[in-house]
Amino acid sequence: MKIAVLPGDGIGTEIVAEAVKVLNALDLKLEMDTALVGGCAYEAHGHPLPEATLKLAKEADAVLFGAVGDWKYDKLERQFRPEQAILGLRKNLGLFANFRPAICYEQLVGASSLKPELIAGLDILIIRELTGDIYFGQPRGRRIATDGHFPGAEEAFDTMRYSRPEIERIAHVAFQAAQKRNKRVTSVDKNNVLETSQLWKDVMVEVGQQYPDVELDHMLVDNAAMQLVKAPKKFDVLVTGNMFGDILSDEASMLTGSIGMLPSASLNSSNQGLYEPSHGSAPDIAGKGIANPLATILSAAMMLRFSLNQEAAAQRIEAAVKKVLEQGFRTADIYSEGTTKVSTKEMGDAVLKAL
Amino acid sequence: MKIAVLPGDGIGTEIVAEAVKVLNALDLKLEMDTALVGGCAYEAHGHPLPEATLKLAKEADAVLFGAVGDWKYDKLERQFRPEQAILGLRKNLGLFANFRPAICYEQLVGASSLKPELIAGLDILIIRELTGDIYFGQPRGRRIATDGHFPGAEEAFDTMRYSRPEIERIAHVAFQAAQKRNKRVTSVDKNNVLETSQLWKDVMVEVGQQYPDVELDHMLVDNAAMQLVKAPKKFDVLVTGNMFGDILSDEASMLTGSIGMLPSASLNSSNQGLYEPSHGSAPDIAGKGIANPLATILSAAMMLRFSLNQEAAAQRIEAAVKKVLEQGFRTADIYSEGTTKVSTKEMGDAVLKAL
Ligand SMILES: CC(C)[C@H](C(=O)O)[C@@H](O)C(=O)O
Ligand SMILES: CC(C)[C@H](C(=O)O)[C@@H](O)C(=O)O
Repeated sequence: MKIAVLPGDGIGTEIVAEAVKVLNALDLKLEMDTALVGGCAYEAHGHPLPEATLKLAKEADAVLFGAVGDWKYDKLERQFRPEQAILGLRKNLGLFANFRPAICYEQLVGASSLKPELIAGLDILIIRELTGDIYFGQPRGRRIATDGHFPGAEEAFDTMRYSRPEIERIAHVAFQAAQKRNKRVTSVDKNNVLETSQLWKDVMVEVGQQYPDVELDHMLVDNAAMQLVKAPKKFDVLVTGNMFGDILSDEASMLTGSIGMLPSASLNSSNQGLYEPSHGSAPDIAGKGIANPLATILSAAMMLRFSLNQEAAAQRIEAAVKKVLEQGFRTADIYSEGTTKVSTKEMGDAVLKAL
Repeated sequence: MKIAVLPGDGIGTEIVAEAVKVLNALDLKLEMDTALVGGCAYEAHGHPLPEATLKLAKEADAVLFGAVGDWKYDKLERQFRPEQAILGLRKNLGLFANFRPAICYEQLVGASSLKPELIAGLDILIIRELTGDIYFGQPRGRRIATDGHFPGAEEAFDTMRYSRPEIERIAHVAFQAAQKRNKRVTSVDKNNVLETSQLWKDVMVEVGQQYPDVELDHMLVDNAAMQLVKAPKKFDVLVTGNMFGDILSDEASMLTGSIGMLPSASLNSSNQGLYEPSHGSAPDIAGKGIANPLATILSAAMMLRFSLNQEAAAQRIEAAVKKVLEQGFRTADIYSEGTTKVSTKEMGDAVLKAL
């Protein structure tokens, strides 16, 4: 089982180190190779996703990813910015299915912006299509407008698009995920305005007929942004396109109050996957040894489950994380009075011990 | 001063009636004409925005709008659905600047999903561009894909676009609004992915140089969706495009917990405007006389201020609304123990009395 380890920038190296430590303790035959990605790769090799890194990722069964980005790269041309590495990996590996659980851990209810009764027990799975939509649609660029409000003026444009089979495959992923959960899928679109959304909705309805045991409903994206705030627990599986999924999954994870706990998985059709925490590279706290490694450790568990077929090992990690929370260990981001504040490394050690 | 009154569907007629009552009590020379819009217009005339309604709106100084839509129209072809009326009005009247305040009233802090300390005193102004972006961009439709993941498959597509002068004019609106407030503008885009957003950001920076007294910062849309949950009070004016504005303004208004209190204004370059509550047509409670008319009454106040140049009258209405809240009157949506539950009509009467 080959794993490409790509720590990236900011807190990436610190949190990935803890996840690797945990993986090593499991006594599985894991072959792990590390490479640069993001801003550090740009500095070393002139590109955020160097050829060698991409090759390593492609040849691996799974990629364990930290985080990329730093304000200091904001001025670079877009193609050299750290985030392009993640877009390049998604595209080149065909990682079309992004799983982002938004879970509120019992012990961390107080960390949420939301009132406890609205958030306690929250367990939503957001499934975001990840290789289509306006993220990758062509044509795109700048040109002189020939119509619209200001013909003759400079304009910029992008293309939103989804094809039927692209929607079909993510629909199947969502319905099958719902079958293992509470059997409800909410498909989010903007069909009252967008052609793309109308096809999205039509295909969701069609595919849904193959899953009579799963209840399907539809919600407009603006309403979904509201309902996540109003009554997040009403959702089970929420499936949506790349752009809306970007916004709603971040909103949902922040609602839990402990985004430092939330893993994510991005899979292709052969279950090869990229696993990363839902949070970013947090350059402001990088190098201080205080970042929360649990989202990355839980991402490693997802990796064992989805790409490496090691369900038992995945569960061992998840149980260990539960245990350290019960024991009261907290990194700074989830600390509250009466608990024990620990460093990144101490948190990794605590998980190791709990394994 | 000519006002086109378009109550629309659902609770629209009930809430607009109360706003008209309040306007009539002001002793201004207001000429008000009513017309059908939305689903009821479709039923009566075969179109959600009949020619006569559009003409009335165009010739008026301002439009007072209720709400449109009902689930029973969901199956209609898109061009006949009630929402098309609102898109048609925006387009035909050139209403490019949408103002959506997200305010948390002192007395209603408890109605929010958020913890009181996060939301008390909230006062954000969201400025959404309303006639451009992917809402109106051409080309759009269905076709057979010639590239992408599945060449040969059916696909749907839409075009996101913004021209430089379109961004410039909304930027000026935002900076000028900020000058009257806390002098901070947050421009929200997705420049790490979209060409359109890169131009958006570039133009915001350029226009910002003309407003050295206003502080400008930039935020990615996914991060904005998170920061609204995490620390909403950090925002002053948030300016963004049509699509992102749709999502973020709804998220922000739901954060306040009292969307039934929030007005909105949509203006063109001659200050002709459309005024409507931020909430929808709520067909589930239509006809019951329990809807909250305050958002519509406050929209009428915005109308007096922005389109009719009647600042004093606007302030009278706003003061009256504050007073009825202090007096403890509450419609069902904002009711809590210890306050007086009133009907739509009783709330309108209370405002009249407080004037
Ligand atoms: C870094 C950026 C391109 C990316 C995205 O927009 O998809 C990130 O926000 C995410 O959600 O993984
Ligand atoms: C009804 C719909 C077309 C509209 C929009 O998306 O703009 C609505 O959601 C709004 O925000 O006013």
